[in-house]
Amino acid sequence: MANVLGANQYGKAENRVVRIVRDTPRHEIHDLNVSTSLRGDFGGAHVTGDQSQVLPTDTQKNTAFAYAKLHGISSIEDYALALGTRLLDVTPAATQAQVRVEEYAWTRLGQHAFVRRGGEVRTCVVTVGRDATHVVSGLQDLVVLKSTESEFKGFLKDEFTTLAETDDRILATSIVARWRHTGTDVSWNASYDDVRDCLLSTFSTTYSRALQETLYLMGSAVLDSQRSVAEIRFSAPNKHHFLVDFSGFALEGTPHEGLTNDGEVFIAADRPYGLIETAVTRDDAPPAGDAWLAVPGFV
Amino acid sequence: MANVLGANQYGKAENRVVRIVRDTPRHEIHDLNVSTSLRGDFGGAHVTGDQSQVLPTDTQKNTAFAYAKLHGISSIEDYALALGTRLLDVTPAATQAQVRVEEYAWTRLGQHAFVRRGGEVRTCVVTVGRDATHVVSGLQDLVVLKSTESEFKGFLKDEFTTLAETDDRILATSIVARWRHTGTDVSWNASYDDVRDCLLSTFSTTYSRALQETLYLMGSAVLDSQRSVAEIRFSAPNKHHFLVDFSGFALEGTPHEGLTNDGEVFIAADRPYGLIETAVTRDDAPPAGDAWLAVPGFV
Amino acid sequence: MANVLGANQYGKAENRVVRIVRDTPRHEIHDLNVSTSLRGDFGGAHVTGDQSQVLPTDTQKNTAFAYAKLHGISSIEDYALALGTRLLDVTPAATQAQVRVEEYAWTRLGQHAFVRRGGEVRTCVVTVGRDATHVVSGLQDLVVLKSTESEFKGFLKDEFTTLAETDDRILATSIVARWRHTGTDVSWNASYDDVRDCLLSTFSTTYSRALQETLYLMGSAVLDSQRSVAEIRFSAPNKHHFLVDFSGFALEGTPHEGLTNDGEVFIAADRPYGLIETAVTRDDAPPAGDAWLAVPGFV
Amino acid sequence: MANVLGANQYGKAENRVVRIVRDTPRHEIHDLNVSTSLRGDFGGAHVTGDQSQVLPTDTQKNTAFAYAKLHGISSIEDYALALGTRLLDVTPAATQAQVRVEEYAWTRLGQHAFVRRGGEVRTCVVTVGRDATHVVSGLQDLVVLKSTESEFKGFLKDEFTTLAETDDRILATSIVARWRHTGTDVSWNASYDDVRDCLLSTFSTTYSRALQETLYLMGSAVLDSQRSVAEIRFSAPNKHHFLVDFSGFALEGTPHEGLTNDGEVFIAADRPYGLIETAVTRDDAPPAGDAWLAVPGFV
Repeated sequence: MANVLGANQYGKAENRVVRIVRDTPRHEIHDLNVSTSLRGDFGGAHVTGDQSQVLPTDTQKNTAFAYAKLHGISSIEDYALALGTRLLDVTPAATQAQVRVEEYAWTRLGQHAFVRRGGEVRTCVVTVGRDATHVVSGLQDLVVLKSTESEFKGFLKDEFTTLAETDDRILATSIVARWRHTGTDVSWNASYDDVRDCLLSTFSTTYSRALQETLYLMGSAVLDSQRSVAEIRFSAPNKHHFLVDFSGFALEGTPHEGLTNDGEVFIAADRPYGLIETAVTRDDAPPAGDAWLAVPGFV
Repeated sequence: MANVLGANQYGKAENRVVRIVRDTPRHEIHDLNVSTSLRGDFGGAHVTGDQSQVLPTDTQKNTAFAYAKLHGISSIEDYALALGTRLLDVTPAATQAQVRVEEYAWTRLGQHAFVRRGGEVRTCVVTVGRDATHVVSGLQDLVVLKSTESEFKGFLKDEFTTLAETDDRILATSIVARWRHTGTDVSWNASYDDVRDCLLSTFSTTYSRALQETLYLMGSAVLDSQRSVAEIRFSAPNKHHFLVDFSGFALEGTPHEGLTNDGEVFIAADRPYGLIETAVTRDDAPPAGDAWLAVPGFV
Repeated sequence: MANVLGANQYGKAENRVVRIVRDTPRHEIHDLNVSTSLRGDFGGAHVTGDQSQVLPTDTQKNTAFAYAKLHGISSIEDYALALGTRLLDVTPAATQAQVRVEEYAWTRLGQHAFVRRGGEVRTCVVTVGRDATHVVSGLQDLVVLKSTESEFKGFLKDEFTTLAETDDRILATSIVARWRHTGTDVSWNASYDDVRDCLLSTFSTTYSRALQETLYLMGSAVLDSQRSVAEIRFSAPNKHHFLVDFSGFALEGTPHEGLTNDGEVFIAADRPYGLIETAVTRDDAPPAGDAWLAVPGFV
Repeated sequence: MANVLGANQYGKAENRVVRIVRDTPRHEIHDLNVSTSLRGDFGGAHVTGDQSQVLPTDTQKNTAFAYAKLHGISSIEDYALALGTRLLDVTPAATQAQVRVEEYAWTRLGQHAFVRRGGEVRTCVVTVGRDATHVVSGLQDLVVLKSTESEFKGFLKDEFTTLAETDDRILATSIVARWRHTGTDVSWNASYDDVRDCLLSTFSTTYSRALQETLYLMGSAVLDSQRSVAEIRFSAPNKHHFLVDFSGFALEGTPHEGLTNDGEVFIAADRPYGLIETAVTRDDAPPAGDAWLAVPGFV
């Protein structure tokens, strides 16, 4: 019996890469958070302290910044593919390079002035291997709410169940979604915009019998619209909004007598929250391989 | 010599009040974070443990939620004035009630569906006293950036100064601004929109010789546009974007030879950051009284 | 009528200064977060863009790091006094320098290995002026809880009051405390240790009729023990722990029948929270001057 | 071709369970953050909106609180096993229940008063299935630093490599570690204490040629000491401490002439950071099954 090295990866996380394109007076901005990692045969670094196969995380950082200029950022997926390919090329011991990117959107104020847009963050996780490459696009912090057309009833009950069934509640969530492409010949920006539209329009227009159903509908809409998407996964907190109880107030004989709360005043709770994690996939989707390996969130 | 009670206040902080207006199929949402506090003669609670003059923070919370229905939320300032007046009315020992509100904006997706907008948060701090009432409106998390038209040079130097002078840098900040109104007869929502426009258009269109100058110009534009604003205060981190140094790369004879970085690739730093806090005021502004008492940020 | 510059200050915030003393094989570590600001006549920087009186925030940063070596860190107060004095000396336009420090504690593992201790963070705010100098010591993130010997009853009620009176509840808070010294001839480290002991032993051994009373007792104990402390101020959230309601469970005839909750199971809530801000002062304390100017938290 | 439901789970996250044991005047406190999820055949909830097989997340929450009393918390692993077993028992459609717990430590001040200890957080992830049960214990936020006896040199270089080799640097990290037990017949608290001791003593006493090597040594020490541990996984940011450059100061002829920085003054950086994720396992470890499924951090 002996101790052996198990799965491992290493890299530089959260490089805050800001790229200004200033070839004309009308500047453009790309504002990214880039994390890279390398996987492979790095036993030397762990077991004997031999770093000769280790491309430093500092070099990975330098490359992330250099490639913002050398390759450019037409889309985060395209940039991540180039960066991952480079890191793999120069690291013989590595079998895979994973590049994760978050992109923060800005709204133009003028030729060279911008205001950060807020709202959802666009993401991708690209895994470049010696034999296969995977692209998972995504978004996070997409906070949506519907103030009616949401129920939750007919659920399983045991002796600890006290939740009342309801025909009308607020449904709110902050969506993390990631979708796997079947290939890399994709118009990444157009694809992203379409997925975002599918998610929002489905959320907005469908009746909800549970957050699970709503996510399944949203995912199905994406797969129906984007032929190059093999599957989509969600991690979605049920951000509870509890109806505030006005019934205990001593309002009899006061000007406020008869105060009611018919779905009008809620308290938004922080913790605990429901957490729904789910996937929708094509029944003929190609195998995922390592596309989801070490991707934060739902497996 | 004896110990005595000094300044004090107490209340309920961060009530997450969500108000849905559903009188018609086209719902509206107001999404607030409300904090209240009471000041005055609360020596009993501190010194002898006598709570008879203390309106519980739990009751303050209940009132914040009840007033979202009873009074409504035409604007956060209007709601805070009503809530502060109520709390003062029912607490004889109090001399002032302060109400702070943050409002999160949502974009409509449909009749009763919304997506959270992100970007800046609208705020107010209302102080209701027995004799005087103050309204300070504001915003926070307004992140702006200009990719040129910003310099920093001609500064004071000592033996620890190593900063190079620059004619062209990125200027970026996340603005917290608060402005004090001279009265309460204000169209709060229109006033807010105008101030926000003044801030963004001034930032976008003026040359910057320092963040201090830019803030002063922004504040002056607000005072020039809004006659009912007596002063405006800013707290603004200088969010440094450092030009990445490509000069150390060993690119001679490689395909990347001649790689330059002419204001194109930056690293966005977290800490440390410059912090500029400043105020612009009318020279004939009425006294501030307790308008700024216990307001977080710059005094 | 014209716009004029109001109060202002500028500096470098959150310099993460780590100082290793390695004169012997037994190393020591000082792990600080240092923020500096300068106040005074900086109208040029704001109004005309003239930076000639402005010591750059980058230089302030450099000085904070250099002084960790040149002056050393026998205590954060002593270091801040030296740093503030230096910044004022080299900036003729400044009338005051404020230095804020947070110190993170480490526990020794060996001669040169350490584990971060967690728990409360020691703080100070030092204001160095041309004529007067003030030292405010403090701590934050001191989280304490008592599981009994705490009541809340006899409070003021109105028609929105629904809170039940209680003879026994959990009292929990995360204390921010700051205390002002009357001079600078203080054994800073010994004084700090004594104040911390006073706070914890008073919290632990006294009955609580409200968090206000407990804070007042804690503050009085500090003033009684430390003759050089003129006043102490607290900002303390009432971190609510709500008794979980087991009464709705359908346990009749089950093995769990008779399940009760006699102060045994609580849910720790995040928001909203009570917020108690209060001060205890000597009745013969010297005036505070600008000691509390722009100090975050309670005025 | 059709859309189908993929992997999914649902539950209640971050229940802040506080349990006071008060059978004697000397109270005890258990302060937990509990998350539960159920996996299995929940196609109805997703595809047809049928909730009849869904035990509500609200009921999962109620059960987490009830079991803090009914079962008690002798250790977080023991409590999680009981809670997971219960949830699986009452949910026929579920094939697995996963329970994650974080425990915050408190130091006793008196019979019924406590101060939160800070430092590392103890964790576990328990997966209860119909056929197999897995326990993964762990800790997070264990921040350690060594001020010497750490090098990094002999690494792979390419044209973007600018990092200097070093014989002496600060090594600092905030460790997340998780270790899988081969069974459930374990003295959980004693095992935890021993693992923590192994980690700290190995970190403290070994020379480091890379964080990878140090983690491997720490993991090996755990496996050597704890026969019931099959493998251990780490996720460890390399928290960079950069030596501050004093060479640019204009100190010639000043009292500060000759200021050097021989490993004495560092700036602690936030982002980017190296991120090392690695595992050490016995070569005869039993298969992991679903022990690591949906465990945050490294796969």
